[in-house]
Amino acid sequence: MSSPPKEAVGITVKKSEDFSEWYTQVVLKAGLADYAPVKGFIVLRPYGYAIWESIRDLLDRRFKETGHQNGFLPVLIPESLLSKEEDHFAGFTPEVFWVTKAGDNDIGEKLALRPTSETLAYSIFAKWISSYRDLPLKINFWNSALRAEIKATKPFVRTSEFLWQEGHTVHATAEEAEQEVMTILGIYRQLIEEYLAVPAVGGFKSDKEKFVGANYTTTLEGMMADGKALQMGTSHHLGQNFSKPFEIKYVGKDTKEHFAWQTSWGVSWRLIGALIMVHGDDKGLIIPPKVAPIQVVVVPIHKDKDAALVKGRAAEITQELNQAGIRAHVDDRDEYTSGWKFNEWEMKGVPLRVNIGARDIEKDGVEFVRRDSREKVQHDRAKLVEVANNLLESIQKSLYERAKAMLDGFMSKPTTYEELKATMDGRGGFATAGWCSAQECELKIKEETGADIRVMPFDQAGMPKKCVYCGQPAKKLALFGRAY
Amino acid sequence: MSSPPKEAVGITVKKSEDFSEWYTQVVLKAGLADYAPVKGFIVLRPYGYAIWESIRDLLDRRFKETGHQNGFLPVLIPESLLSKEEDHFAGFTPEVFWVTKAGDNDIGEKLALRPTSETLAYSIFAKWISSYRDLPLKINFWNSALRAEIKATKPFVRTSEFLWQEGHTVHATAEEAEQEVMTILGIYRQLIEEYLAVPAVGGFKSDKEKFVGANYTTTLEGMMADGKALQMGTSHHLGQNFSKPFEIKYVGKDTKEHFAWQTSWGVSWRLIGALIMVHGDDKGLIIPPKVAPIQVVVVPIHKDKDAALVKGRAAEITQELNQAGIRAHVDDRDEYTSGWKFNEWEMKGVPLRVNIGARDIEKDGVEFVRRDSREKVQHDRAKLVEVANNLLESIQKSLYERAKAMLDGFMSKPTTYEELKATMDGRGGFATAGWCSAQECELKIKEETGADIRVMPFDQAGMPKKCVYCGQPAKKLALFGRAY
Repeated sequence: MSSPPKEAVGITVKKSEDFSEWYTQVVLKAGLADYAPVKGFIVLRPYGYAIWESIRDLLDRRFKETGHQNGFLPVLIPESLLSKEEDHFAGFTPEVFWVTKAGDNDIGEKLALRPTSETLAYSIFAKWISSYRDLPLKINFWNSALRAEIKATKPFVRTSEFLWQEGHTVHATAEEAEQEVMTILGIYRQLIEEYLAVPAVGGFKSDKEKFVGANYTTTLEGMMADGKALQMGTSHHLGQNFSKPFEIKYVGKDTKEHFAWQTSWGVSWRLIGALIMVHGDDKGLIIPPKVAPIQVVVVPIHKDKDAALVKGRAAEITQELNQAGIRAHVDDRDEYTSGWKFNEWEMKGVPLRVNIGARDIEKDGVEFVRRDSREKVQHDRAKLVEVANNLLESIQKSLYERAKAMLDGFMSKPTTYEELKATMDGRGGFATAGWCSAQECELKIKEETGADIRVMPFDQAGMPKKCVYCGQPAKKLALFGRAY
Repeated sequence: MSSPPKEAVGITVKKSEDFSEWYTQVVLKAGLADYAPVKGFIVLRPYGYAIWESIRDLLDRRFKETGHQNGFLPVLIPESLLSKEEDHFAGFTPEVFWVTKAGDNDIGEKLALRPTSETLAYSIFAKWISSYRDLPLKINFWNSALRAEIKATKPFVRTSEFLWQEGHTVHATAEEAEQEVMTILGIYRQLIEEYLAVPAVGGFKSDKEKFVGANYTTTLEGMMADGKALQMGTSHHLGQNFSKPFEIKYVGKDTKEHFAWQTSWGVSWRLIGALIMVHGDDKGLIIPPKVAPIQVVVVPIHKDKDAALVKGRAAEITQELNQAGIRAHVDDRDEYTSGWKFNEWEMKGVPLRVNIGARDIEKDGVEFVRRDSREKVQHDRAKLVEVANNLLESIQKSLYERAKAMLDGFMSKPTTYEELKATMDGRGGFATAGWCSAQECELKIKEETGADIRVMPFDQAGMPKKCVYCGQPAKKLALFGRAY
């Protein structure tokens, strides 16, 4: 027997000791992704892609239920189009990849690889919209975006190309667009909290942090196990900032011409990064059952003499689980020991394992092993599906609770600027503080502590009286934090 | 009331009179696609994308059932990697888009936008494969490919970026790879014939026409209504042509190192082009029920006084159809007349329409209108679902039969080269002829008639004795045709 594949070798650092190295090892060894030949780019392996499919399928269903449809846009955007909304262009141009040649020929105007598709989409939407009857237009695109990363890259969290969805909608009124922004943030929250089991704080971005070209940006901010924040999803109200330069106009029931109101919104595979950083442990990944490609792995444990019997039972159990709608997989490979398999499936974060051996068959029982607590429980074979469902539900719930406790533990309320600074230099997390709304204070805090305003929560209850930096009256309650 | 949206205006040319203009009008006016700002690129509108989703969902399910998994690869491939297999590189390089800049900076080595991903995928597969236990590796990618088109472009059929899937597999033996090639061609045939209702001829490509870098290419060739052939899907046996330069090696059970055997295969949104060209008529698109985003459109026909009653019944009927798993849509817009709606849904090719008016409600009946034959039939309301299912099945079948009759009508068996030439200059189609296997004859025929060898059918029965060009003994039965 030759040496086992590399990814089967366990994680060699502790999450609490070297978080960054731990993260990289989990990504590579659990078989989620690999590095591509061009720096800053990654390849998604099937196991990682299957998690993305879970995320995509849920969102796609919810988007369709709320009246959105999918479309396709080319990856190439002419420079003249990208530069049509000034702030937007200034925001993206430093990181744009440019196509300048086709075959051996120089092309005329250079073409940008989409960093995001507002400009391209809206130049075309303008052709499709002429009357109030054409509104609302609500289109989503599943594609990848490209932004040349100059900062250090990190699989899923910061890569030069990333999978995402970008939604773009056009409405007759500002209010309808406002509603749309919140409907989408609600769908994102459901995905992130109920499926990925990651609690998030919802609210507004500051003007400095909002999407370039938006009136305002709403966001869901998560907290990672190392005390750094992660922006999980954003939904923007674009006002008429794009409809004016792109001339998206409609004739209303009043027979007059109006500029339309717009939104755009997106989440990316960054959510997979969040899932890893929040739930993983020293053994590797832990995937919340609702998005796990494999929810239950069945491992037959046998000697040569009882191999056929035990494998037969393992196959039966797997089939029974699958028929009940549980994503189960039997690992009956002969080339690996049971111990090796246990380690591999723990590293891959499968939430529930069923061990089945000759003794279990005798007693007509099954042994369950939870991935989150690593607790073992014996049950009657007859209760297989019921127990599996209960355990999966319990794991989903307990992962969320654990993550919520972690988030809560990272919340601080510094009463002075020195305290805020000390917290950021120390364990990090979210510092709740008052802010006077002046960008100057925001910039100074960022410069001196490395912390941004991550979010101004929708719930502004308990706003301190003074700005944590300048001492002037506070206008907003803000969460400060260092972020990915 | 302002003027109706442009796409509602009917097709203004006949399919038989100006096929090319007819095609473009159907694509644009049925709301399938639109032109993008860069020449040669198109945008998919929701209705067009929904057809692609039907195709994708079927293939994705069949790929997974046969042990394939999805992954993701970046769109950028370094030049050094693309050029690693010489024939392959020579084949693609004239049409490659090149990225040479990121932001304001020139990048070092220029990066190709994927024309296809063999080289990138295999440079990475080589890292994942070391033992026979890692085989077979069967991965599919849903993405887009980019090839700068110099020839005239045509939506879906020839565009500089196109949606497709590309599958890549690695096997321990040549035989396994051979089987894989045929398994995939079988899946493609099922999609094309059973779902898209387009008959296709399966067989091998000639060496001149095969995929650059393959040992051999299998293909499914369809015949369009203008007598031109369309390559619908291809599945390639790559032999060890890539595994050698990319060093995809595995240690076998014999403990020795071997180069692996590979396949690759793909279909693109070109299939939507085929569907349009084969089934459409002077009224517009006709979509086969199995892939139609809307299978039944329900149109309430009413005066003001009975509007509520009729709309209520239309909604009920739609719900009943949806609950039975039929994709039904009610068009209860007040801003359009029934006649306008009939035209629009005919143009969009919805296979079945239900008209419902006050008189139908009185008689407790419904009126069905088939899109293919435009035949009207009355039925009891109680039989709604049963009749709808039967009609949809009948339409699916009759579209296939009509297409098969068309294909058969385009088959000719020229006994002389002059006859072949005359056929190609005339109505086109497939000319069945003997071929001596010399590339010289193939090239001459192409030069003089514009016809390629589209396919050497798997079924070689009835091979003529002589090469249609040189008169030497024939080695192959080949179908010649002009093609898209």
